[in-house]
Amino acid sequence: MQNKPILVFQTDFTYKEGAVSSMYGVVKTVDSSLEIMDGSHELPQFDTWSASYRLFQSLDFWPKGTIYVSVVDPGVGTARKACVAKTSNGYYVVTPDNGSLTHVKRFMGIEEVREIDETVNRLHNKKTEGVAIFHGRDLFGYCAARLASGIISFEQVGPAYPVEEIKEHTIHEPTVEGGSVKGIFEIDDPNFGNLWTNIPLKLFQEQGFKYGERVRLRIFNKDVQVFDEKVLFHQSFGFAEENEPIIYNNELLRIALAVSRGSFKKQYNAGFGPDWTVEFSH
Amino acid sequence: MQNKPILVFQTDFTYKEGAVSSMYGVVKTVDSSLEIMDGSHELPQFDTWSASYRLFQSLDFWPKGTIYVSVVDPGVGTARKACVAKTSNGYYVVTPDNGSLTHVKRFMGIEEVREIDETVNRLHNKKTEGVAIFHGRDLFGYCAARLASGIISFEQVGPAYPVEEIKEHTIHEPTVEGGSVKGIFEIDDPNFGNLWTNIPLKLFQEQGFKYGERVRLRIFNKDVQVFDEKVLFHQSFGFAEENEPIIYNNELLRIALAVSRGSFKKQYNAGFGPDWTVEFSH
Amino acid sequence: MQNKPILVFQTDFTYKEGAVSSMYGVVKTVDSSLEIMDGSHELPQFDTWSASYRLFQSLDFWPKGTIYVSVVDPGVGTARKACVAKTSNGYYVVTPDNGSLTHVKRFMGIEEVREIDETVNRLHNKKTEGVAIFHGRDLFGYCAARLASGIISFEQVGPAYPVEEIKEHTIHEPTVEGGSVKGIFEIDDPNFGNLWTNIPLKLFQEQGFKYGERVRLRIFNKDVQVFDEKVLFHQSFGFAEENEPIIYNNELLRIALAVSRGSFKKQYNAGFGPDWTVEFSH
Repeated sequence: MQNKPILVFQTDFTYKEGAVSSMYGVVKTVDSSLEIMDGSHELPQFDTWSASYRLFQSLDFWPKGTIYVSVVDPGVGTARKACVAKTSNGYYVVTPDNGSLTHVKRFMGIEEVREIDETVNRLHNKKTEGVAIFHGRDLFGYCAARLASGIISFEQVGPAYPVEEIKEHTIHEPTVEGGSVKGIFEIDDPNFGNLWTNIPLKLFQEQGFKYGERVRLRIFNKDVQVFDEKVLFHQSFGFAEENEPIIYNNELLRIALAVSRGSFKKQYNAGFGPDWTVEFSH
Repeated sequence: MQNKPILVFQTDFTYKEGAVSSMYGVVKTVDSSLEIMDGSHELPQFDTWSASYRLFQSLDFWPKGTIYVSVVDPGVGTARKACVAKTSNGYYVVTPDNGSLTHVKRFMGIEEVREIDETVNRLHNKKTEGVAIFHGRDLFGYCAARLASGIISFEQVGPAYPVEEIKEHTIHEPTVEGGSVKGIFEIDDPNFGNLWTNIPLKLFQEQGFKYGERVRLRIFNKDVQVFDEKVLFHQSFGFAEENEPIIYNNELLRIALAVSRGSFKKQYNAGFGPDWTVEFSH
Repeated sequence: MQNKPILVFQTDFTYKEGAVSSMYGVVKTVDSSLEIMDGSHELPQFDTWSASYRLFQSLDFWPKGTIYVSVVDPGVGTARKACVAKTSNGYYVVTPDNGSLTHVKRFMGIEEVREIDETVNRLHNKKTEGVAIFHGRDLFGYCAARLASGIISFEQVGPAYPVEEIKEHTIHEPTVEGGSVKGIFEIDDPNFGNLWTNIPLKLFQEQGFKYGERVRLRIFNKDVQVFDEKVLFHQSFGFAEENEPIIYNNELLRIALAVSRGSFKKQYNAGFGPDWTVEFSH
């Protein structure tokens, strides 16, 4: 029945006003049989790093062929490219080329990228002509719908350009030194107040850290130490006492910090980004 | 495949509790093949002006025939009418007649309006009998589902009444005087903190304002001047420096105010409504 | 067209990051023709009482056969059971057995309950192996999708266990004494700031309270009286003056408190739970 690819949208818009509705309406007007799913909304505004991370987190849990539309677009209406990337693992991502493809390119691979040809794949009518600030509605959603519907092929999106030219954020790598592991908090779980490091579970375990062990954790904000405690490392929050911190591995098999039935971010006033470094030692 | 009209819902409810779920469950129980889409939720509570504006913003981006259900209903259970409006441009709006149809009536036109006959188009069972406060579930959603499913025709919604009797809010008009344009902030973009005026781009440009120009903007709150600066007018946020204000035209081709990568509302402590007047001059 | 049961999800996750997306992606990967609906999200974190209440509030408004997936799971990765309950009124609930089934068991009845067999009904691959903290994605969503798709029967979910063993919260009962009714605020409407008691409308009316009457309401927080006023009892908010409190019966035919066009919770700094007792008298 559902032979056309699913369209999944992530944006820094909100359902509290009409932007998502207008964008989805355009998709349904192109082809009312298309299935639209919400990926994420209310991503931190203008934050293309978060957009990139959320794609990385969720994209490959969807069926092959899924078209993911990402609209975090601080440069809308300026010179940045609008593109569709075809990933090495069989997905399409429709997005401004502004860093939002960083993780997908690095961890999944991008086979080919095409700049959207606005002369054919942009919605032109008297309601949209002269509007420069809503490419989610007039360009990304519209083009994605045409692609999903089969009105255009990937080749008809527009001209290909070198994958090497795709804009990328810096991804920070963890380092190992004498049984210690250093990394950064690179993103949060805003709902539960968890902080996720860039340290893979495998690397962590290779340094000999074991579930049930209390691990020394130091946290630095711009080189100022703000935390230095022995913290339980275990498989899940439930192994820690209520309101106690815990080191665990998250849904992406990376080392993360939580407070059992609480919020690590709030309890320790911590955030994420390259300024937040962490060090785990025995 | 999808031959029945899509149902789009906007409410001042939230997904944080079960009201939306119950309402959609009723629709699916009427006809499980109906497609439900979220328009907006968590609209400002009881704010029928916002409900009206969001309809205006999004309705006509959906396919013709779409049934939009709007449930912002401070008078639920009292004498206000429950109705279905048929718009001149081919849509249906199911809503309390409480001002929520203001913009649709004015800018799209309403061809016919019918009061919902509660004896046939309201859900009657032991779970709903005696409940007066949830017409979203028991009346609007249920009636809209019956209409979308083809169980009832538009005529069978209930008796028609004169379009002139539809409740309307006052829409304030912009004025022009010697190359200056005056208007109000009539709504916000709550996500990005932008403020939207009632001044059409066309009217603005007719006074000679051009992209790239610095325009004198004065803002008054109840006649007290709270802002007086030269502000860049351009096509998109990206043309302003970070944290600088910018005058642009929004997705509805009206003049609006933003702060690049920031929030105009927060930065200048501004709001919307008839008390907030703006004046643009050279 | 839609012959497979609908999947409705309620969680304490948020759309602001990628968890919901990953979870739904898994469902669609099992069977892309399955229909997913949002029940509730951003339920109070770890609050299995709220999960239970929201199920009670919404479940039986959906078509018979609907599969409701509830993921509020503070004990994820620990010994608590993961189960599928078959209700006496024709629904399936997929949930951790942690109190989330309290109301469904009590007010709808549970015919049979089965523990999910993780050897067959859990998603096993290199992205999920070693992840203990996201059963919404790897276990509940995956198992529910298999059940909805017909890949497994209810019997193939896993071994049945006695319904009597299902974990339950205490449900507090209202009491009647000489024309007065005592109960508790047992849940809120977080959007409008209403508080819902455990007192059925029928019991209330049997004590002679009538619409239009001013009823004496006393509220106690841990036995300290925090409110003692005569409050209007009526069918809907609209019968009270703006900012006045009102006693009404809610969408579940229970007695509740609101402030007309305001928030009772905020205006009177009140909350819910067994510590909040209420007494209505003439």
